[in-house]
Amino acid sequence: MCPLSEKTLNPPIKPSTARVFSTEEKQALYDIINSRRDVRNEFLSTPIKDDVLTRILSAAHKAPSVGLSQPWNFILIKDAARRAKIHEAFEKANDEAAQMFPADKQGAYRALKLEGIKKSPLNICITCDRTRGGKVVLGRTHNNDMDLYSTVCAVQNLWLAARAEGVGIGWVSIFNNQDLKDILHIPEHVEIVAFLCAGYVSELFKEPELEARGWAKRIPVEELIKTETWHA
Amino acid sequence: MCPLSEKTLNPPIKPSTARVFSTEEKQALYDIINSRRDVRNEFLSTPIKDDVLTRILSAAHKAPSVGLSQPWNFILIKDAARRAKIHEAFEKANDEAAQMFPADKQGAYRALKLEGIKKSPLNICITCDRTRGGKVVLGRTHNNDMDLYSTVCAVQNLWLAARAEGVGIGWVSIFNNQDLKDILHIPEHVEIVAFLCAGYVSELFKEPELEARGWAKRIPVEELIKTETWHA
Repeated sequence: MCPLSEKTLNPPIKPSTARVFSTEEKQALYDIINSRRDVRNEFLSTPIKDDVLTRILSAAHKAPSVGLSQPWNFILIKDAARRAKIHEAFEKANDEAAQMFPADKQGAYRALKLEGIKKSPLNICITCDRTRGGKVVLGRTHNNDMDLYSTVCAVQNLWLAARAEGVGIGWVSIFNNQDLKDILHIPEHVEIVAFLCAGYVSELFKEPELEARGWAKRIPVEELIKTETWHA
Repeated sequence: MCPLSEKTLNPPIKPSTARVFSTEEKQALYDIINSRRDVRNEFLSTPIKDDVLTRILSAAHKAPSVGLSQPWNFILIKDAARRAKIHEAFEKANDEAAQMFPADKQGAYRALKLEGIKKSPLNICITCDRTRGGKVVLGRTHNNDMDLYSTVCAVQNLWLAARAEGVGIGWVSIFNNQDLKDILHIPEHVEIVAFLCAGYVSELFKEPELEARGWAKRIPVEELIKTETWHA
């Protein structure tokens, strides 16, 4: 067999020159990261174009996943009756949530808008199939939740791609997940990781809305960096 | 009080015009997302410049966090003796891991390089302080692990910023986390979410290394998208 055909049949497994990004390209990423918001009220009703949605979901699918298990699924929900049921599930959970806060914070909590389930034209439920990749998954042997973490990486990729495309995302976490699983017919072995509201936005808050409304403060990043060990 | 000073004291809380990204800026994000790799062997020994590291960590800190709790910390580890100990902890766990695979896969598993702890010039341990934000955190009332998920969003922001800056990242998940906690003096209430190896790279795999080496296959994204419910 001549060396050429051997090379063709058995291409060498090796890395190639890495893409170098320009100052402008780096700045684009930082501007996308810095202007990304958790959107609750700014959704426009215009449906998201199919090609835009495809690019956003493809970006999610390019996330890292433990053992390349790609444990995620994306359920796209537009039906108004189904979203009304989901909204009811949110309201039930949110009433429970309000009562968990100290009495003097409940008023402020109830004044916050925390979801855009019916206002946004699209809801996306991102799940993690805990059985995908088989019984033993490379990299998950000692940390069983690595598949959930992989799915969150997909959520963050999706969120940044959406921001770049002019689509706002709001992550709604105030649900009893079993309510959502019942409404969406999600089987036992599949876990809901994120429930997202999605729609075009023309306006966004400059800072996180919870910061703008005085609910919480930004911590300077320097205070969160440690050297060598937790105590240093 | 004149209207002007009232406005100054109580600025209106409202969104402003959202930044629109150009085709080139969108493409930069997609190129960063698509060329991001889980790096094990391509690390150069050059130390990461301080300003580059600051930008990468600041990008992580701009991740969404439940109730704006910002539960993450970043422990930067350079000390060679400490990294040698961490590498020992990896090797112990990796031996245990190899034995979990079916006999006919153990050889292939052991042939894979799964970490760059000593080769990379910097290790970053990203933790989640489960007590940050107080006893009741907005958005965490029904999903207690939302703080862990927020921390994973920070990891993914960091990973993309690193790619843009020419820095490779490898996530090592094959540890008994208590071993790492002992080495890094991490207290009980703080959970390790990600242990990353970081260093400049000039070469990268074009596809995920596990795909290039035939360990796992990419699933077409279309197969992962569902409409309205899990079964549709």
